Amino acid sequence: MLILLKSPLMSQIVIISASIRTDRKSDRVALFFRNYISDKGLASVEILDLNEYNFPLFNERLRFQKDPPDSALLFAEKLKKSDGVLIVTPEYNGGYPASLKNVIDLLTDEWNRKPVAISTVSGGQFGGSQVLTSLLFTLWKIKAWVVPAMFPVPDVEDTFDENGIPSNIPQTEKRADAFTKELLWCIAAKQKMSGI
Amino acid sequence: MLILLKSPLMSQIVIISASIRTDRKSDRVALFFRNYISDKGLASVEILDLNEYNFPLFNERLRFQKDPPDSALLFAEKLKKSDGVLIVTPEYNGGYPASLKNVIDLLTDEWNRKPVAISTVSGGQFGGSQVLTSLLFTLWKIKAWVVPAMFPVPDVEDTFDENGIPSNIPQTEKRADAFTKELLWCIAAKQKMSGI
Amino acid sequence: MLILLKSPLMSQIVIISASIRTDRKSDRVALFFRNYISDKGLASVEILDLNEYNFPLFNERLRFQKDPPDSALLFAEKLKKSDGVLIVTPEYNGGYPASLKNVIDLLTDEWNRKPVAISTVSGGQFGGSQVLTSLLFTLWKIKAWVVPAMFPVPDVEDTFDENGIPSNIPQTEKRADAFTKELLWCIAAKQKMSGI
Amino acid sequence: MLILLKSPLMSQIVIISASIRTDRKSDRVALFFRNYISDKGLASVEILDLNEYNFPLFNERLRFQKDPPDSALLFAEKLKKSDGVLIVTPEYNGGYPASLKNVIDLLTDEWNRKPVAISTVSGGQFGGSQVLTSLLFTLWKIKAWVVPAMFPVPDVEDTFDENGIPSNIPQTEKRADAFTKELLWCIAAKQKMSGI
Repeated sequence: MLILLKSPLMSQIVIISASIRTDRKSDRVALFFRNYISDKGLASVEILDLNEYNFPLFNERLRFQKDPPDSALLFAEKLKKSDGVLIVTPEYNGGYPASLKNVIDLLTDEWNRKPVAISTVSGGQFGGSQVLTSLLFTLWKIKAWVVPAMFPVPDVEDTFDENGIPSNIPQTEKRADAFTKELLWCIAAKQKMSGI
Repeated sequence: MLILLKSPLMSQIVIISASIRTDRKSDRVALFFRNYISDKGLASVEILDLNEYNFPLFNERLRFQKDPPDSALLFAEKLKKSDGVLIVTPEYNGGYPASLKNVIDLLTDEWNRKPVAISTVSGGQFGGSQVLTSLLFTLWKIKAWVVPAMFPVPDVEDTFDENGIPSNIPQTEKRADAFTKELLWCIAAKQKMSGI
Repeated sequence: MLILLKSPLMSQIVIISASIRTDRKSDRVALFFRNYISDKGLASVEILDLNEYNFPLFNERLRFQKDPPDSALLFAEKLKKSDGVLIVTPEYNGGYPASLKNVIDLLTDEWNRKPVAISTVSGGQFGGSQVLTSLLFTLWKIKAWVVPAMFPVPDVEDTFDENGIPSNIPQTEKRADAFTKELLWCIAAKQKMSGI
Repeated sequence: MLILLKSPLMSQIVIISASIRTDRKSDRVALFFRNYISDKGLASVEILDLNEYNFPLFNERLRFQKDPPDSALLFAEKLKKSDGVLIVTPEYNGGYPASLKNVIDLLTDEWNRKPVAISTVSGGQFGGSQVLTSLLFTLWKIKAWVVPAMFPVPDVEDTFDENGIPSNIPQTEKRADAFTKELLWCIAAKQKMSGI
């Protein structure tokens, strides 16, 4: 007799790849994390690529939209069903890109107590780490649970290739291990509180 | 013989009305400032209403776009020619709306040393004042010159009517006087440095 | 036979009363929370009044100090043993007071995964809510777990008396109920993860 | 006949060296800037070393203190008389050190329209650049004029020696040139507005 138990391995993580810019490079980090989480069997994982969703500039929260696009409903559904979210974002002028704020503000209860980890990416030396202050605050206001762990990626063009393979695999995986563990800890804590 | 002198009265101020949300109320404050600045003869003034521009979610800075929309070129031109900018913005989840970041990141040199004043607006009691931390930082990073003055508007629905008339005219004009003076001081300082 | 069970009621909450300013009023809110948490039997509770500790300006983290003052060791011990922390802080020039940063930076591991709730207090109309962006970020960096709930107190002189009694008891207790529930939820989640 | 003209060369810049930590390294950057500004003849310059002032944790703004220490009065006087301020600060847990906030909050009108430049320093790879968001906001709230220029120093131990000599002199001086020019531009703009 086969008994299926809900296990940590079955957690669902969605990776929001936030940049929609021409010639973006941060999607390499999203690819890396998808492969890393999947290969290590940490969770089931899917990339939500904002560039593929091709969203308009939203002018209203989804639940108040009278005729929302299917793509927005699908995005919301995937986010809601996920057990945790990993945001991979560039920093533009010290803040988050409009494309990312666009989908954060679109939703409301979907973010409630959602475990979220943030990886910032830049072509420069500081790894986009200044975007954290504003992004953390906005996610906190919408009642997400941003895990206290950083994964800044400086010099992305040199440190990850187009398939998301890091130039320094052991070091990158070591950092990824600590980073994802924190996300998985929060997912587990929330599941325990839900009696799962 | 008529001699036209460049005078402070001839400064150009553009007001960015940042909200594109259905049923927005912050545009009332933009209307108020247009009327106030115009009636007092402080500068020539024009509202750049992001809702009317109907911009897409930009995926590239304007100067790198191969086939930019005319509306974006027009917006950039108006911003560039202005002597000062007054941003009227709501706060969404403690941050700026995507619609506003969308046009900040669109431009680059146009913001350089541009005097900017920020009025935050909300339907709640705190006047959207939390958006200032992230908006100030982003404008500073892009090298604008944000004047150290606040004009938070709480309870906008009760404090300004649809035509931008404040419910308490003397008090609102007193605050507007101090706020716009700071912007005009910066405009004058920049003009002096340019030898105007 | 008496069996002592570790129960949620036995959680220890410390309230950091952050202001050391002459004529401070924010301590009224600390008194309110002590009474509220105690009277409702939510947890055992103690105020750590930074004014009474009379700390110097620290120049080093506690664990690297060669001859630390007893008061600092006592403070660290109380914080470490607590299951959750409630910070009551004023906002000075949009940021946290030096007195508060002084004790945050003093410690390190003591903050790790510590559930923290923040109540901001001001004599003005915006309830000190701008301090949240920087305080949240600093606590996140030191790996505390700041619960996504706000308890801003505007006009503190009119809304709480010297004994911490609110002028509007039902409304204040309703807000306090939602606020402390979030802290207690996080405390419970952490205890579950520790197998308690 | 000798005619003394008030010239940009006669501007007074004070450098606040903010760290008071044992084994601090950021004072090396303060030394560098003192030497650089002095050697290039950009302004007269003095370091205000918070470690030497040995301030207590202030509990009140200076103008409300009944019996202020002489050192605080002297510090205030030097800041007030300066034409511009260069803050050299480390980042502790993503924010400013208590020692720095301690003297910012001590003063009030002394900061009004004061040109300020910020150099952040760290022993790590990101140059303390995250402290900028909160420090910028606080200085803006107190009505200082923070120039839009960054001078982050990563890996300070390797990039500056104990006498403030940079390991890479040409590159460091090139960055310092752009950074100080922005501060001098603001000083000049303010002087022009004062009719100097």
